[in-house]
Amino acid sequence: MSVHPDVRAGDIVVASRQAALARYRAVRLQSEALCRPLTIEDYGVQSMADVSPPKWHIAHMTWFFETFLLKPEQPGYRPFHPAYEYLFNSYYNAVGPQYPRPERGLLARPTVAQVYAYRRHVDEALARLVERAPAAVWPRLAALLLLGINHEQQHQELLLYDVKHNFAHNPLKPAYRHDLARSNAEADGTGWHFFAGGVHAVGHGGEGFAFDNEGPRHEVLLGDFRLAGRLITNGEFFAFIEDGGYARPELWLSDGWATVQREGWRAPLYWEAREGAWRIMTLGGERELNWDEPVCHVSYYEADAFARWRGQRLPTEEEWEGAAEPLPREGNFVEADYLHPVPAGPGARRPAQMFGDLWEWTRSPYVPYRGYRAPAGAVGEYNGKFMSNQMVLRGGSCASPKDHIRASYRNFFYPHQRWMFAGIRLAEDAP
Amino acid sequence: MSVHPDVRAGDIVVASRQAALARYRAVRLQSEALCRPLTIEDYGVQSMADVSPPKWHIAHMTWFFETFLLKPEQPGYRPFHPAYEYLFNSYYNAVGPQYPRPERGLLARPTVAQVYAYRRHVDEALARLVERAPAAVWPRLAALLLLGINHEQQHQELLLYDVKHNFAHNPLKPAYRHDLARSNAEADGTGWHFFAGGVHAVGHGGEGFAFDNEGPRHEVLLGDFRLAGRLITNGEFFAFIEDGGYARPELWLSDGWATVQREGWRAPLYWEAREGAWRIMTLGGERELNWDEPVCHVSYYEADAFARWRGQRLPTEEEWEGAAEPLPREGNFVEADYLHPVPAGPGARRPAQMFGDLWEWTRSPYVPYRGYRAPAGAVGEYNGKFMSNQMVLRGGSCASPKDHIRASYRNFFYPHQRWMFAGIRLAEDAP
Amino acid sequence: MSVHPDVRAGDIVVASRQAALARYRAVRLQSEALCRPLTIEDYGVQSMADVSPPKWHIAHMTWFFETFLLKPEQPGYRPFHPAYEYLFNSYYNAVGPQYPRPERGLLARPTVAQVYAYRRHVDEALARLVERAPAAVWPRLAALLLLGINHEQQHQELLLYDVKHNFAHNPLKPAYRHDLARSNAEADGTGWHFFAGGVHAVGHGGEGFAFDNEGPRHEVLLGDFRLAGRLITNGEFFAFIEDGGYARPELWLSDGWATVQREGWRAPLYWEAREGAWRIMTLGGERELNWDEPVCHVSYYEADAFARWRGQRLPTEEEWEGAAEPLPREGNFVEADYLHPVPAGPGARRPAQMFGDLWEWTRSPYVPYRGYRAPAGAVGEYNGKFMSNQMVLRGGSCASPKDHIRASYRNFFYPHQRWMFAGIRLAEDAP
Amino acid sequence: MSVHPDVRAGDIVVASRQAALARYRAVRLQSEALCRPLTIEDYGVQSMADVSPPKWHIAHMTWFFETFLLKPEQPGYRPFHPAYEYLFNSYYNAVGPQYPRPERGLLARPTVAQVYAYRRHVDEALARLVERAPAAVWPRLAALLLLGINHEQQHQELLLYDVKHNFAHNPLKPAYRHDLARSNAEADGTGWHFFAGGVHAVGHGGEGFAFDNEGPRHEVLLGDFRLAGRLITNGEFFAFIEDGGYARPELWLSDGWATVQREGWRAPLYWEAREGAWRIMTLGGERELNWDEPVCHVSYYEADAFARWRGQRLPTEEEWEGAAEPLPREGNFVEADYLHPVPAGPGARRPAQMFGDLWEWTRSPYVPYRGYRAPAGAVGEYNGKFMSNQMVLRGGSCASPKDHIRASYRNFFYPHQRWMFAGIRLAEDAP
Repeated sequence: MSVHPDVRAGDIVVASRQAALARYRAVRLQSEALCRPLTIEDYGVQSMADVSPPKWHIAHMTWFFETFLLKPEQPGYRPFHPAYEYLFNSYYNAVGPQYPRPERGLLARPTVAQVYAYRRHVDEALARLVERAPAAVWPRLAALLLLGINHEQQHQELLLYDVKHNFAHNPLKPAYRHDLARSNAEADGTGWHFFAGGVHAVGHGGEGFAFDNEGPRHEVLLGDFRLAGRLITNGEFFAFIEDGGYARPELWLSDGWATVQREGWRAPLYWEAREGAWRIMTLGGERELNWDEPVCHVSYYEADAFARWRGQRLPTEEEWEGAAEPLPREGNFVEADYLHPVPAGPGARRPAQMFGDLWEWTRSPYVPYRGYRAPAGAVGEYNGKFMSNQMVLRGGSCASPKDHIRASYRNFFYPHQRWMFAGIRLAEDAP
Repeated sequence: MSVHPDVRAGDIVVASRQAALARYRAVRLQSEALCRPLTIEDYGVQSMADVSPPKWHIAHMTWFFETFLLKPEQPGYRPFHPAYEYLFNSYYNAVGPQYPRPERGLLARPTVAQVYAYRRHVDEALARLVERAPAAVWPRLAALLLLGINHEQQHQELLLYDVKHNFAHNPLKPAYRHDLARSNAEADGTGWHFFAGGVHAVGHGGEGFAFDNEGPRHEVLLGDFRLAGRLITNGEFFAFIEDGGYARPELWLSDGWATVQREGWRAPLYWEAREGAWRIMTLGGERELNWDEPVCHVSYYEADAFARWRGQRLPTEEEWEGAAEPLPREGNFVEADYLHPVPAGPGARRPAQMFGDLWEWTRSPYVPYRGYRAPAGAVGEYNGKFMSNQMVLRGGSCASPKDHIRASYRNFFYPHQRWMFAGIRLAEDAP
Repeated sequence: MSVHPDVRAGDIVVASRQAALARYRAVRLQSEALCRPLTIEDYGVQSMADVSPPKWHIAHMTWFFETFLLKPEQPGYRPFHPAYEYLFNSYYNAVGPQYPRPERGLLARPTVAQVYAYRRHVDEALARLVERAPAAVWPRLAALLLLGINHEQQHQELLLYDVKHNFAHNPLKPAYRHDLARSNAEADGTGWHFFAGGVHAVGHGGEGFAFDNEGPRHEVLLGDFRLAGRLITNGEFFAFIEDGGYARPELWLSDGWATVQREGWRAPLYWEAREGAWRIMTLGGERELNWDEPVCHVSYYEADAFARWRGQRLPTEEEWEGAAEPLPREGNFVEADYLHPVPAGPGARRPAQMFGDLWEWTRSPYVPYRGYRAPAGAVGEYNGKFMSNQMVLRGGSCASPKDHIRASYRNFFYPHQRWMFAGIRLAEDAP
Repeated sequence: MSVHPDVRAGDIVVASRQAALARYRAVRLQSEALCRPLTIEDYGVQSMADVSPPKWHIAHMTWFFETFLLKPEQPGYRPFHPAYEYLFNSYYNAVGPQYPRPERGLLARPTVAQVYAYRRHVDEALARLVERAPAAVWPRLAALLLLGINHEQQHQELLLYDVKHNFAHNPLKPAYRHDLARSNAEADGTGWHFFAGGVHAVGHGGEGFAFDNEGPRHEVLLGDFRLAGRLITNGEFFAFIEDGGYARPELWLSDGWATVQREGWRAPLYWEAREGAWRIMTLGGERELNWDEPVCHVSYYEADAFARWRGQRLPTEEEWEGAAEPLPREGNFVEADYLHPVPAGPGARRPAQMFGDLWEWTRSPYVPYRGYRAPAGAVGEYNGKFMSNQMVLRGGSCASPKDHIRASYRNFFYPHQRWMFAGIRLAEDAP
């Protein structure tokens, strides 16, 4: 396995072993903190194939460090359990075969306690490795450590999606937490923001960590465009529903319309009309729908149909990145402790909600940048092999760790998927 | 809901309220004892649609008493939780809609602790009801209590099937218990036992509890026949495998052959060839195959194909009952604590293993006896509506409570099912 | 391949080679006559997996004679085409692999003309074989010839079912024939006919041809019972629909109710409510529903639910046979040229419509008679391997050749199937 | 329905009504000529859901003219048959509901003769309409006529794909034609051709017909790149197979690898190893594989995996168009009458086989060009609604009419599809 090529030398992790270990420990603790509200029973559920049980996430995060750092780099390392390589391998064919994804919810064993023991085992071995690895090995190790930390942050976010889906599927509608922060803000009317076209550089090019799929930085030619000042709200999306949006094929892509019919979609995921009022499921339990909040849990098909209905379009990922690059990386991230998108508040001179709140669907299929090559070996499977049939989303969400997101970050999902925190920002050509 | 018509007045339950309550408590305790080896995680797993998670069984057993005794008979009874009527209804359309069976494994909530609290709540209310019910009500109540007790015993047995399937599905192959009884017996050669034909009465007709499907007692005309002296062993079944049994369509029913192809069957369920040796999964964990033990976890299709290969046939349920009626109701039941079939030992003047060890496939489809009518109301759904597409099995198994089984007991499964303790006894016409 | 054991020596075919050949030719001509109303395009359609295209039937009928008579018995016989053994083998594993059944409709080639040339080829070779076979061979040959003739008659009937299904599936609703006979009769009220129980012999035991599954003749013990004087009419069945029959789970077997839900059944197959009136598809095209005609194209589940709703039951096959044996074999067969069931007319001292009109669902699963053994070799696959999961129907239909049916004839279909001419006759215990 | 915006006034069709009609007639005759080798039976087959029966194509081509020209533009026009609007509507929701696509093969009626009568009816009405339409209407009419002509040409090509699939599926492996042209050329070694990057205009911008999805013409920024001098040959692709290409997950996109596993792919579609030699199905019947011919019937996944294996990549659609624009529009089109790709012959200064032979997979997902808007009304469904989940292919094939193809032509298929004439041309960055 080669070193990950996109890990830059200047990163904090490389600067100091102590700093690296501190960051590792902080992120690991955060994973456990996210699980604290769960019962033992909650750890095991997989309410659809896209979901992984929380226990599996916790084990797989650990597997990543064991597989890509301890096994190759720590001489004499004894794996915690011989079967875990198979059980907790997500999709790395170069590592070996994988326990079938749709059956992750059937793994009563190992127990939660055993999975935490696995965690302890790896944490201790990793601390030793970081402290004692020869200087010549450290840069390679640091790069992998950084990848593992970012990998764990991605799974922290997925864990929240999955817990939400599991809880929403249960007729008892349990709340993940009762003490979440709440916002009283209102969403102002959309202003539009103009961006001049021309040749722009996109992709990660600076210091700090980035995933391989964010590079190489390269130039693209953009036209003049405008971007909406905030995300589309529940109220705005409801107007689409009221106008028959889910029943008018002319608004939909053909594959989207087939999905609407097959799945019987009539509203975003987690909306439920009960006794004349719309309610939605949140990580804080069921709530009344707030018209000012950004609409979330919509698929690409719904985002695209909504944009068509409004006579606009979604931005390309390059337009989005061009607009976001100069902005401060601030917003409703996981640290804000809403775990839900919040209303944008009053309009401003710059587009609001670009970072945090919700991943924003772009009209760009997830394909390699010019000059991209996946790294050799197993870590090369991290991103590159998924570059077909998916769409790019940008900006992070209320479930993303703040220090995990940047303007060049490319998230990707299939156009029919809805269980992640995804929303809609409109764009239009500026003639 | 009418009283169950097949509950006889002479039964112990009816004789004394104290005796009834004692029996209720003993059976309830036994359910909990069966769950003691389980971790919290084990309670939630459903490895296929036919399986229910142990937690669901525990809740549903309780639901039965709450739904059919407390709600209709206890004035002012307050249900433990309003959603449980829906969540733990198995298939009683007259009670209301049912949470989808294949998704029982997704119910992280209620937790195990909550399900046991439900149990306590119902146990206490039921004790009060039994103690205080007016004398006029008691006979009806006693009949339902007896039905609920037998219902719980059926689920005790299913719980063991389901735990076994869940554990066998897990690559870690955990053992349910490490301290099970073991047998060193050998299986003697099969002798055959002759039974004279003529007009015989079959079906339940005596004292004591029986399910509605065991009656009415009625006469049938049988030919002379012979019954094998014991169950078919693993060694005998292996000869069928070695002779290409799973690859020779001429030995199979057409639907059976289609199943073999579709499922890729090459041996009974839970057999696994590893490094040149056959191993099987048991409730005591993986073991080497014992050639003398009765072959188990075979479908009707396999039992039928094996019999054809041997030039014999399976018995009809009436033949089986005729042979079993005079025999003592003794055998390897759950109380023997093997939780696995054991070798028959030396031959005898009477067929061995008729009771216990394994349910025996008969060649009789599960249809109503002449004169059978399902009871009115919800309890009428207990047995009658399943009288199509299934086959009758007789005799009980190593997972059946001894006092739950009798000669007239009609168990039934689909011909492709294999996860229950089912085996093969041969028969032949006696010309 | 052994000779078919149920072909009796006294049959006309065996009596004289000329008579045998004449009967062969008459039946073969009848197959072609049934196809005369078809266009070339109609020959190729397979509107569901249970249906075979008419061209496939025509070829398969011929294949039977080629495979079971010409190839083994005619020295030097040259098969018409080497691929036909595979293409037109229905389900005989002993002959070899089979072209996949659900794809029969994809076989544009061979063309219709080629399939008729195949027919001519086999007819000529068979005539020579019958005329010139040595005397020692003739009895065996005669038995197989008779089997082939009856086989062809079965496919004549299936061909009509299949043409009807294909035509009904087409939105243009073409008529198979516009010149069918019509009846103006009315259906009288049902009378009931008493039959005394006791030990009765059932199964074929006399002279003439019978399929292997009709024997051996054996004794059964019946109770006293009553049989309805005619088939249930559309009007009577409509009362069941009006009473919510398709929406009341308590009336249905569990598997039946699941089928109703899954398939969205709301009426028998081929019923369609249009502009306030019920219309049905027939081989004569779409017609208004005639309330006096027997209800047809109902599944076993519907027949069983209807009987339960009426507080009665379906007869067993042994009851039916006992009642039918003394009756003259007369009725609305294919020769009457209705190709549709007709009203029963006024009541009589004997049950009407026992033969012809519609196959009558019995409550008897299709299982082997005591002492039954399938013949050795490929013809042994004709009936025996289907003896699971299906139900017995009796009496023949308006699509059956009259000389093909007898009281002991056991037809069988899966309980969910509806595209054959099947109807309902009620029975009840006579206390 | 608005006029199609991409129909340019300068086109021959608009120049003269007589020329327009002559072109219409020529294209219509060509459709019928393509069907001449078919038997009546061949017209009805649909060997998979992607395939339409030839009869359906013939009717649908006609439907297009009836629906989009005659019905709206010819006062008093009487449709040939009221049901055809439904039966032969492919996917135009604005026109109305559609007969289910996967069941097109079940439509025995209308017959082939009736479909040709429909064709005659529409041809005659259309000629009258073209000749007599008021001058003010003619430009709109001409635009739609041109669209219909191009639509018919697309279906001519699809018809050949579909006939090939139908015939290949038949175990008799019939040839569509025995008199096809054959080539003895050899494929020279691949040379590479350099193209300079920079800002290029792509998309249709000139005179003549183009589909809406080819515009608007717009500028893109390309890097320097090289394009292979010809298509990949069977021999070159076989080296990939021999190197374990279909068994090495690291070469595949994740969705591609899942497809390989699910479908059991081991070679391109229509390859078959028999007795040690590879054979392929062609429209001229089965042939020995010619190593020098371009490899065809590969999916995007296979094209992408092959490129990765070779350390190269597929071109983007903009690169391809930039390279193709200056080239003469010559190649192996349907008029060459090979109906199969032929070897490239000796290398040249310009890339060979850019037009004709095979559609070339690009790495570009099929998405709208900047500024694209689908036309209003039903014809707006022609292209725009398919802009998700598909990949762009360029250049036309041996089944494309020559005058139908141009450099800006964007064809599109799902990445798993293989039954069209699609092949591989490699590209690489020029550093």
